Amino acid sequence: MSFREYLAEQQQLIDRELDRLVPAENVPPETIHRAMRYSLFAGGKRVRPILCLEAGRAVADSPRGIETAACSLEFVHTYSLIHDDLPALDNDDYRRGKLTSHKVFGEAMAILTGDALLTLAFETLSKMDVTADRKARVIAELATAAGTVDGMIGGQVADLEGEGKTPDGERLESIHRAKTGALLRASVRMGAIYAGAGEQQLDAISRYGEHVGLAFQIVDDVLDVEQSSESLGKTAGKDARQQKITFPAVYGLAESRRMAERELLGAHESLAIFGARAGRLRELADLIVQRTS
Amino acid sequence: MSFREYLAEQQQLIDRELDRLVPAENVPPETIHRAMRYSLFAGGKRVRPILCLEAGRAVADSPRGIETAACSLEFVHTYSLIHDDLPALDNDDYRRGKLTSHKVFGEAMAILTGDALLTLAFETLSKMDVTADRKARVIAELATAAGTVDGMIGGQVADLEGEGKTPDGERLESIHRAKTGALLRASVRMGAIYAGAGEQQLDAISRYGEHVGLAFQIVDDVLDVEQSSESLGKTAGKDARQQKITFPAVYGLAESRRMAERELLGAHESLAIFGARAGRLRELADLIVQRTS
Repeated sequence: MSFREYLAEQQQLIDRELDRLVPAENVPPETIHRAMRYSLFAGGKRVRPILCLEAGRAVADSPRGIETAACSLEFVHTYSLIHDDLPALDNDDYRRGKLTSHKVFGEAMAILTGDALLTLAFETLSKMDVTADRKARVIAELATAAGTVDGMIGGQVADLEGEGKTPDGERLESIHRAKTGALLRASVRMGAIYAGAGEQQLDAISRYGEHVGLAFQIVDDVLDVEQSSESLGKTAGKDARQQKITFPAVYGLAESRRMAERELLGAHESLAIFGARAGRLRELADLIVQRTS
Repeated sequence: MSFREYLAEQQQLIDRELDRLVPAENVPPETIHRAMRYSLFAGGKRVRPILCLEAGRAVADSPRGIETAACSLEFVHTYSLIHDDLPALDNDDYRRGKLTSHKVFGEAMAILTGDALLTLAFETLSKMDVTADRKARVIAELATAAGTVDGMIGGQVADLEGEGKTPDGERLESIHRAKTGALLRASVRMGAIYAGAGEQQLDAISRYGEHVGLAFQIVDDVLDVEQSSESLGKTAGKDARQQKITFPAVYGLAESRRMAERELLGAHESLAIFGARAGRLRELADLIVQRTS
């Protein structure tokens, strides 16, 4: 199967599981379930869930039910986008080429929809069909990665507070390690833990996740400079206007590209102990660095 | 020990544990930890955590570490207040006599602070020192009670959508069973599960939680009509102005008071199987119905 076919198949697998996990639109109160589904099925590429699946597969043969764990990552990712887009935060009207949640459902509902998706992430994990011990460890991974200390929310706060400050490579990396890196790292760690990874496997997959996470953010920053809003499906050039610290602002475009390539190399090296089982993880890392939107 | 002394002692126990669980104000990013602590230590009465502790004690002698589980309820309760008070929702400037989070830290930070407290609730539970099986069940309880299907967020949405609609007893009860009832019910269920409750004990404590939850909301609605903003520490009379469906609006004040008394009776009856072990739970139910703020 080509990588492109594989990706489409995995996205379908995740979409089916998301559909199964989120209450239907006719379950009351209907508005919030409609709003949750609107943002969940707005064209996301399912990067985090697929990384989770593949990390599990690198450790064990088809870990049963792992797609449930994978979906919790999409819930958290989607909640963070909905809240990020709010007028009080990034004030974005479009995301992936569609109106943002608060533009369609109003601000109150968008706030509650984000809350609901975050809550559903943990409800989903708490009901997984896996040993209670692995379940608790997977939940701890997600909660820590989404939290304030070196986690996603901490990164968002540091990012907000960094606006307008002098760009500085160290601060930049620490913001992004938290803001986007922590959840990507958690994606692969959760998959590996779910599948029963040993210490050494978990270390290796964590390093892979860290490299991929940093590469992902560098490429995101580069695309924000290089691409049009149309091809990105969201407002381009916002970083510069909001005076965010970005990789191109600190290192320039050419060096940023080279940095992403170095992270990609690191990601590949981390996978050595998995041999052929990590083929798709290698292709996923390539995709993340070579994407154009 | 008098009930008043007992309450003060329990509140101190919870406050100490909250202080241990929330990152210190000097842990970066400092702003969000300051904002989390501002709302957590703004004079909350710790009703939910104390109900959780006592439900555990009704089942087993001093269940070790149960105060950690109890604190997760205060995190969820506080997050819901912060988001509820936002301009896009209830737009309240004061809560417990102090400025609300967004008035002090701004809207963006208030949104993220709520998110952070919700996340911390699950991180806290995932790291409890209890068997993995009980841990997973306690997490499932909290997530379901805080969610959209008959849970807290569902109740908030139904409440928002009910504004201006004809008051109707059935809708009213279903809103409140979700909006405030689910978390109060979860408070005692989590404590009981943590302590190793059997099926029959869990049923009894759930009924207690349902009665207390409904009584709590009826009294809240009554106080909103009867009391001044000053004695409540928040804006009084808002329900009527926002055309919320309330118990006094549907049943009148006198009948609402009688309904609360009937729920209190039901709460007491549910505790029969616990005998003397449930003394404090009885007093807590009395307090909830007889409070004046």
